[in-house]
Amino acid sequence: MESTIRQMDIFFNPKSVAVVGASNNIHKAGHVIFKNFAENERRGVFKGKLYPVNLREDKILGYRSFRLLSDIPSEIDLVVIVTPAATVPEVVSDAAEKGVKSVVIISAGFSEIGNHSLQDSIVSVAKENDIRVLGPNCLGVFDTITGVDMLFLPETKILISGDEFIATPRPMAGQIAIMTQSGAFGVSALDYLTGRQMGVSKFVSFGNKCDVAEAEMLTYLLHDERTWVILLYAEAIEAGREFMKVADRVTRRKPIVAFKSGRTDAGARAAVSHTGAMAGSDKIYDAAFAQVGVVRVQNMEEFFDVGKAFAFQPPALGNNIGILTDAGGPSVMAVDECESNGLTIRRFSEEVLQRFEDLKQRGKLPRFATTANPVDITGSATSEMFERSAEIFLDASEIDGLIVLGLHHTPALQEDFVDRIARLTERTTKPVVACDIGETEMAMFIRSRFEKYGIPAYSSPEDASRAIAGLVHYGEYLKKIGSFEDYMKIFTRRHEGSK
Amino acid sequence: MESTIRQMDIFFNPKSVAVVGASNNIHKAGHVIFKNFAENERRGVFKGKLYPVNLREDKILGYRSFRLLSDIPSEIDLVVIVTPAATVPEVVSDAAEKGVKSVVIISAGFSEIGNHSLQDSIVSVAKENDIRVLGPNCLGVFDTITGVDMLFLPETKILISGDEFIATPRPMAGQIAIMTQSGAFGVSALDYLTGRQMGVSKFVSFGNKCDVAEAEMLTYLLHDERTWVILLYAEAIEAGREFMKVADRVTRRKPIVAFKSGRTDAGARAAVSHTGAMAGSDKIYDAAFAQVGVVRVQNMEEFFDVGKAFAFQPPALGNNIGILTDAGGPSVMAVDECESNGLTIRRFSEEVLQRFEDLKQRGKLPRFATTANPVDITGSATSEMFERSAEIFLDASEIDGLIVLGLHHTPALQEDFVDRIARLTERTTKPVVACDIGETEMAMFIRSRFEKYGIPAYSSPEDASRAIAGLVHYGEYLKKIGSFEDYMKIFTRRHEGSK
Repeated sequence: MESTIRQMDIFFNPKSVAVVGASNNIHKAGHVIFKNFAENERRGVFKGKLYPVNLREDKILGYRSFRLLSDIPSEIDLVVIVTPAATVPEVVSDAAEKGVKSVVIISAGFSEIGNHSLQDSIVSVAKENDIRVLGPNCLGVFDTITGVDMLFLPETKILISGDEFIATPRPMAGQIAIMTQSGAFGVSALDYLTGRQMGVSKFVSFGNKCDVAEAEMLTYLLHDERTWVILLYAEAIEAGREFMKVADRVTRRKPIVAFKSGRTDAGARAAVSHTGAMAGSDKIYDAAFAQVGVVRVQNMEEFFDVGKAFAFQPPALGNNIGILTDAGGPSVMAVDECESNGLTIRRFSEEVLQRFEDLKQRGKLPRFATTANPVDITGSATSEMFERSAEIFLDASEIDGLIVLGLHHTPALQEDFVDRIARLTERTTKPVVACDIGETEMAMFIRSRFEKYGIPAYSSPEDASRAIAGLVHYGEYLKKIGSFEDYMKIFTRRHEGSK
Repeated sequence: MESTIRQMDIFFNPKSVAVVGASNNIHKAGHVIFKNFAENERRGVFKGKLYPVNLREDKILGYRSFRLLSDIPSEIDLVVIVTPAATVPEVVSDAAEKGVKSVVIISAGFSEIGNHSLQDSIVSVAKENDIRVLGPNCLGVFDTITGVDMLFLPETKILISGDEFIATPRPMAGQIAIMTQSGAFGVSALDYLTGRQMGVSKFVSFGNKCDVAEAEMLTYLLHDERTWVILLYAEAIEAGREFMKVADRVTRRKPIVAFKSGRTDAGARAAVSHTGAMAGSDKIYDAAFAQVGVVRVQNMEEFFDVGKAFAFQPPALGNNIGILTDAGGPSVMAVDECESNGLTIRRFSEEVLQRFEDLKQRGKLPRFATTANPVDITGSATSEMFERSAEIFLDASEIDGLIVLGLHHTPALQEDFVDRIARLTERTTKPVVACDIGETEMAMFIRSRFEKYGIPAYSSPEDASRAIAGLVHYGEYLKKIGSFEDYMKIFTRRHEGSK
């Protein structure tokens, strides 16, 4: 395990990198990748040594360029290969001679198009020389802290119109690691997360997985202090047994959210033609993920929504969820979605009902508020009503988590309802998620205000419900294996450390 | 039917309006509503006469105020009531004496909180005097053309911080009508649609439906030229038989998208406690909607996504969908979601396969593109490749609709791929929807560029798939009742008229 961690770490934190296929031509992937490293070095983010390798160039972006890896006078930790597929075996051999132990092959044109022998030849050279290979046909690695950035998609794009637009943004540093089989989906995930202001620790694109695959990367991420949540996109996981063994260890300390597409027969067929790999029955994945506590999601939005919930909130101790709202209709939507996801929205005990009744008697809630769970404080809602109601929910032992549907449109409601609820959550270990509906100023302001306090906020009642369902299902797993308290300790330490 | 249309029209297009409970106090709903009308009159949008009624004020926003409806010297088309519940029966009696035939009761405090007798007393006065009543406990009507705006939620809100934010925006004029039982969800829908730049024709919030309900409003909207699509949110539809009779007529000419919440048992119970109305079995709704061609959706996002698809695109003649992409992973997601929604993604016939093969031979597609449906032109995609591939899809008789997953991140792709695909769609009647993933500049630019051409664009493959599923299911219904061609004529006329 220690050697796996050391080996994987080189991909994210190399002391020296050679980019074979580095280029001055802006249309080449080798240009973008080399430039990423060079710029991050100039900014003081990437602290390793950097060497361009190109048969025909003397200088690349001001760096002295080498014709061959063997021409580089110093040791090389990591080689990134961006040359045409046919040339890759030779480059790997060069790397072997140079004593390199880690190679990332960005180049495509291998097994994914039926070119198995070419890929096999690389694998055998690598095996003989104890070289670890990421790829081929991948986007490699992006790390928000070390400045390693192998993405050949430039951050901005110049349109025909001449305008320059942000096209493939790099997200800020954060606690979410992304492991993806699909490079295209990987970069769109970075685009999505950047726009939603969610931070990333590490990103890795596996491509054909000729050597390094999910299991070893999970082992590495298990020990990466900066990663709290792992988002995994896959169309097939070939080394299933290994994956399960590692996932079983990981999910005791950090949640894994898995989006395995190809869940329908036609989807599975599409995945096969796209990756060249057999996916296996989808039901087997369901069972396998459940067995080792991997939380499976069904679509892209749920993937990010549940990931955000895990980054911010603890798992739930049970599946009885409270719903607090100022908007009747949306609370019905939340109940529907909670129930569809195996949660229950149970009528309060007499004791809790009485506490709400008391609030009404004292004129602290509208007389006509519905208070049986969901609690609907109606369009007369004020910040104080939200606070007093949330307090009862969080105090009630029968409630395992809370959805706050705080629609900002009600006339008397002010933004401090967010602050008041956030203060209450400081003394609870129950998960709380929020929702406001709308796509203009105030809705965005309310959602981002919730998130500043670490309460994930969603733009539909159903999104919020699926997010808390993830927290419930993970909690159920942790309880089953007797690890709930241990995880809570880890969770608390992480979040206290980050304050 | 004609009398229904005339009666409903007064709610949206009154020659004269009295607001009973109009106020100078900015914290009162009667202030906001009167100000909406007054400002729209000043802007020349609202063209009717406007009268404030208030027992204690002489002037409201510069208008001479009347103590009672009977003090107003001219005829009144429509009375909007915003006074406390207990006073409403008297105001309705005053309206009857004045000869008013249309009343909107914004005020709450009736059946929704068990106050049935108060509501009954209003109903009997109204019946005796042939007065049509919208509400009570509703948000009334908003019309983007006539300037009628009864929403008591002001467009902007002043925060504690002193900042003024857009809180309940009014959307631009468009083709989508919104009918909603929940006022809270109704305004959040306006907020959502404004932010997504989707236009609205008419908005009506029913509240307790003591008189006017879905069926009559549908009859009216059937004849409203500006409305092409009807979005209906309901927790219960009481007059089911009437609703079905009208819906059956409407769906031959314009699609109805229904979001009926309370689909689970717990959701149905929550709806009952929230509205006081029995919802009935959810399965009955499924069957009833299907019988009359109402397209039912399961959640908020699907509601808007399918609504947008109908506003822009024709129904599909069959359920065999094509998928064109430059991103393998997302195309698998789309296949999964299409299949889950009853669509098929069938392997092309030899003839179509051959056309793609020819493109490859001529170097117009990457050699390694997957071309069996989905067609994945890979990360080497150019605008020309998208165009040539889309053309084959649209020509192929075996394909009934197309999803374009055009992820902008691929290095060589430029924004003109959108223009090229849009040009092709001008000569087809097959529906086309698009998707780009990401939440930063370029993704938003690409999606909005598609929509400028009338191609609805979504931010996830699953959203795009559910949208086209709506078009397929509606097409299946139209074919079944033999109305497909008739609807297509209407659709074409509408869209040509709007160019």
